Amino acid sequence: MDNQTIFDRILSGEIPCYRVYEDEHVLAFMDLYPLAPGHTLIIPKHHASDVHELPDEAFAAVGRVVPRIARAVAKATDAPGYNLHVSNGACAGQVIWHVHLHVIPRAAGDGLGYRWNSGSYREGEMAAWRDKITNALEQGG
Amino acid sequence: MDNQTIFDRILSGEIPCYRVYEDEHVLAFMDLYPLAPGHTLIIPKHHASDVHELPDEAFAAVGRVVPRIARAVAKATDAPGYNLHVSNGACAGQVIWHVHLHVIPRAAGDGLGYRWNSGSYREGEMAAWRDKITNALEQGG
Repeated sequence: MDNQTIFDRILSGEIPCYRVYEDEHVLAFMDLYPLAPGHTLIIPKHHASDVHELPDEAFAAVGRVVPRIARAVAKATDAPGYNLHVSNGACAGQVIWHVHLHVIPRAAGDGLGYRWNSGSYREGEMAAWRDKITNALEQGG
Repeated sequence: MDNQTIFDRILSGEIPCYRVYEDEHVLAFMDLYPLAPGHTLIIPKHHASDVHELPDEAFAAVGRVVPRIARAVAKATDAPGYNLHVSNGACAGQVIWHVHLHVIPRAAGDGLGYRWNSGSYREGEMAAWRDKITNALEQGG
């Protein structure tokens, strides 16, 4: 099946995982290729490759468990910080086509993190983008 | 006040923002220093510097609006992908001490993205980390 990613196979029980947490709506488990020890994935049980294709409540359910899972990951790894990260789309780094949120333990000097090359807007430009986004939002995105 | 970050001042109306979305629990607005045009922030109205200090429902409320906001940002910017990103803790890149989730439009060759240097676990190591995390989770994190 087209949508049978490795995560769908984990959800169906066909492939095992190192489970951290599970409820009716989400599953959290260890990433096999960690950026740091304790790197954990949280996935919605609802299948979608893109976050913007998910029902609101499916990603609300992911969000609901993030505080407790981030707290546990940080405590277990003694990490002073963490990133939460989603890659959506091939150009954004997505390689498994089922929505997944990374909980990545961080420490000073670990070489990880986002490439933060921020810019600025010209006069009026930010308002124009805001208008385009709010218009799209009013149309349901 | 210690917790009066720029985002708290935006929430109180003391400082203006280019608002994209607002409901009882969350506010979304344009990032003043965008990584790409349309870069949007979603913040919970509940004040906390760290995600793991938030009530579950405060971050569930953030998650609930992500699909529609990501959809609108991607449509408005014609972006083929996006990253969702949270920096939590100074070592993880956090500079404003009120939880915020970035919606960052992505395109091929934009030079953005996460520094993805993944590793692997030695035999038994992943299970040991999983056990530490699940133990922490059982204790409430």
